[in-house]
Amino acid sequence: MRLIYFFFFMLITVGSFAQAKPRESLDPTVSEIWDLKPVKVTPAKNVGDAPSDAIIIFDGKNLNEWTSLDGTPARWEVKEGIFTVAKGTGDIKTKKTFGDIQLHIEWRAPTEIVGEGQGRGNSGIFLQERYELQVLDSYESVTYSNGQAGSIYKQSIPLVNATRKPGEWQTYDVIYTAPRFSENGRVVSQAKITVIHNGVLIQNDTQIWGPTEYKGLPVYQSHGKASLKLQDHGNPVSFRNIWIREL
Amino acid sequence: MRLIYFFFFMLITVGSFAQAKPRESLDPTVSEIWDLKPVKVTPAKNVGDAPSDAIIIFDGKNLNEWTSLDGTPARWEVKEGIFTVAKGTGDIKTKKTFGDIQLHIEWRAPTEIVGEGQGRGNSGIFLQERYELQVLDSYESVTYSNGQAGSIYKQSIPLVNATRKPGEWQTYDVIYTAPRFSENGRVVSQAKITVIHNGVLIQNDTQIWGPTEYKGLPVYQSHGKASLKLQDHGNPVSFRNIWIREL
Amino acid sequence: MRLIYFFFFMLITVGSFAQAKPRESLDPTVSEIWDLKPVKVTPAKNVGDAPSDAIIIFDGKNLNEWTSLDGTPARWEVKEGIFTVAKGTGDIKTKKTFGDIQLHIEWRAPTEIVGEGQGRGNSGIFLQERYELQVLDSYESVTYSNGQAGSIYKQSIPLVNATRKPGEWQTYDVIYTAPRFSENGRVVSQAKITVIHNGVLIQNDTQIWGPTEYKGLPVYQSHGKASLKLQDHGNPVSFRNIWIREL
Amino acid sequence: MRLIYFFFFMLITVGSFAQAKPRESLDPTVSEIWDLKPVKVTPAKNVGDAPSDAIIIFDGKNLNEWTSLDGTPARWEVKEGIFTVAKGTGDIKTKKTFGDIQLHIEWRAPTEIVGEGQGRGNSGIFLQERYELQVLDSYESVTYSNGQAGSIYKQSIPLVNATRKPGEWQTYDVIYTAPRFSENGRVVSQAKITVIHNGVLIQNDTQIWGPTEYKGLPVYQSHGKASLKLQDHGNPVSFRNIWIREL
Repeated sequence: MRLIYFFFFMLITVGSFAQAKPRESLDPTVSEIWDLKPVKVTPAKNVGDAPSDAIIIFDGKNLNEWTSLDGTPARWEVKEGIFTVAKGTGDIKTKKTFGDIQLHIEWRAPTEIVGEGQGRGNSGIFLQERYELQVLDSYESVTYSNGQAGSIYKQSIPLVNATRKPGEWQTYDVIYTAPRFSENGRVVSQAKITVIHNGVLIQNDTQIWGPTEYKGLPVYQSHGKASLKLQDHGNPVSFRNIWIREL
Repeated sequence: MRLIYFFFFMLITVGSFAQAKPRESLDPTVSEIWDLKPVKVTPAKNVGDAPSDAIIIFDGKNLNEWTSLDGTPARWEVKEGIFTVAKGTGDIKTKKTFGDIQLHIEWRAPTEIVGEGQGRGNSGIFLQERYELQVLDSYESVTYSNGQAGSIYKQSIPLVNATRKPGEWQTYDVIYTAPRFSENGRVVSQAKITVIHNGVLIQNDTQIWGPTEYKGLPVYQSHGKASLKLQDHGNPVSFRNIWIREL
Repeated sequence: MRLIYFFFFMLITVGSFAQAKPRESLDPTVSEIWDLKPVKVTPAKNVGDAPSDAIIIFDGKNLNEWTSLDGTPARWEVKEGIFTVAKGTGDIKTKKTFGDIQLHIEWRAPTEIVGEGQGRGNSGIFLQERYELQVLDSYESVTYSNGQAGSIYKQSIPLVNATRKPGEWQTYDVIYTAPRFSENGRVVSQAKITVIHNGVLIQNDTQIWGPTEYKGLPVYQSHGKASLKLQDHGNPVSFRNIWIREL
Repeated sequence: MRLIYFFFFMLITVGSFAQAKPRESLDPTVSEIWDLKPVKVTPAKNVGDAPSDAIIIFDGKNLNEWTSLDGTPARWEVKEGIFTVAKGTGDIKTKKTFGDIQLHIEWRAPTEIVGEGQGRGNSGIFLQERYELQVLDSYESVTYSNGQAGSIYKQSIPLVNATRKPGEWQTYDVIYTAPRFSENGRVVSQAKITVIHNGVLIQNDTQIWGPTEYKGLPVYQSHGKASLKLQDHGNPVSFRNIWIREL
């Protein structure tokens, strides 16, 4: 019996060396892939500006790419290459709809500090009209951590607080993966988001629990492509240089 | 029997409405998190420069943060705020070792085009000394797709080709998650990498198959924190503005 | 100028065909990996029983592998190969601590139905003492969806309701990945869980938001390996055939 | 100036305590979700058998759910509740096509050992006709590790070797997530697979690199729903009890 085991181990040993070639002798071209050529994209001269394949959502001149939620023209104020929430005119959203995207957006809380906590420099970027990346002047304001700038509102706290002072322009570079739903409407894979705030990673492949809710817990409901929505929270937050690359 | 079912459904119906409060009536403060405050990080004035919590791996003056692989001083050339591969002096690596990181690095292929394919402007950024993010002048050169700039070498093709011309500075913004190993040395979760090249997403949460191999397939082997390594492939590729944030 | 482009495209075309070998001509042995041999594990004769490398947490005879939370001996009732919550004796946890695991556990809600909603056949399996996979008689009872059997309590609703009748034995087959924390205590990757309930997938790579909370939202706090904990919720829920494989 | 800071810190401190309620005082019903009820599924009496919502791909009687690759009837041998590869009749695939699935399948390598390595008891389960979960008698045979039973063929080695002897029935319980492609055909998220072999976890949320290739590296190409395919590798491997749940 032990003899049999001995032979068995011999077999393994000999077999292994007999059949496996030493790595050095392998043909290196076998691990080359030639059949798929990535599309050429021309990056912007300055990082932060739109590359050649981006969809320009705001070009500094008008809100033609945007609409109010009821379908009427967007009524926020456009001036000197930026646009600003016009209090009481309501949220606005893009006419185009999106799934997985890379998003660049720049925003600025008002220089003059008015209000406290969630009432100061508050707006929001709703991915697919549902999942809010918070915009807030939380530079030195006091609010709950999952409600500060860069949070996934009422869900995920940013890794660090990389906010600039009110009145300074800030950037969000976002990689967003839309949720997937089964045919019966069940969420199969949750939405995911990575956010770089002013060059600093603040959300790292964060799973989104469901649509943003002010009260209670989020619950996914099936949807397809949807707009990018910006929130009118009553504060004159400004935006500029918004572009999207569809992934 | 049917009566029993009827009562059962009544129970469900009544039960549901009796116990669940309407969302509007919920206390919104319950979904606020106050107990965890993210650390404050001061972003750089210009996106791309190091934020306040970054480890500066190259400050433009010397290679004091680097060493040759054999432990002797790094011998690449430092001049005018950049450093350049000195052919034949070998790879260099950081003295500090890292796990999960955010990395910013800028590189430039030589203006004068010399060589073809993998022989033109070739270097490489090895995360944890093992996993290569390719550096190459593949702007208009011909090579295999999983060997062009921005590829995980011999593994993952970049989503698009966002390369600049030789002689122009290029940026990689990298989010890297180190692999995890079990106590018996088995890989439990593979390394993951997201790369933004000149502002364009080219690797989106890509799983790395194992250590980079020129020949044959990669196989993970257990390791801890490790250096960032740059490759001397014999071409005078330059680097500048390198910083790392530990995650 | 157009001529230049023409030559450029010729270069690409010729280059591609010149350098890439047709797939059929490649050496197939290059994509074979011989250097790493998985350890041999002998599966149980009956699926559901412990394979050869499992840690037996309950062998049907005693609670020697368990302790009360205060370190005193576990006082739940052991009888005829199963053990049962002894009301008022408190939660119990394993003496051994764990990180990433495969877990098999069988449980049974009392045959005699007593109570309603969360008061009927309630217990819970706390991974790493913090993250609760709910145990409940929710076969035909009315409760909130993220509190029914198979939910990650107050977080994730099971994909389907695969519960058996009270009095019948049920199985959970669990694949659990522990959260990872950075050196400063920040969560770097959240805990993940896959649960198969009586053979039916009910949690599919679900991210856990943080430690289970009865009130308010969960917030991660750094921890290392920890015990498996079972909850005394005052109902005589029974358990048997519990084993763990460390991953 | 210092006075201002003092007041600022007072504000933070007071603000924090003033606005955040202690966790104990929160309303626990806010984190209950009542609006979404998971569908009821009746599990099989014996784990391993099909639950009520499964699609039966083989009922033990005939191959009516299968076809040859050219569309003609499947010609493998059905006998005594199992079916067996009929050498030379070619691969077979399901008439139904699938995306994300839970799959249960049982297989048996021939009792009489014939051949060596990849020539012994070889078949394969191709998810979506492209991604092979290897079937092989590698119990005590010598082959490459990423080609043994339970490997993702020529890609991922199983975590452990949980194979039974030739002639014994073996189970694969599979959770499969199909790859997602962008509108331009680029892979956006790779396929993922978890495999439990005879009750033992052998693939844990493994990313699949692309379609299985015998020579060279895999490259994703866009596709939609597709069949489950079984391989005729010339060996009389048998199958039984195959069911699929669409996720």
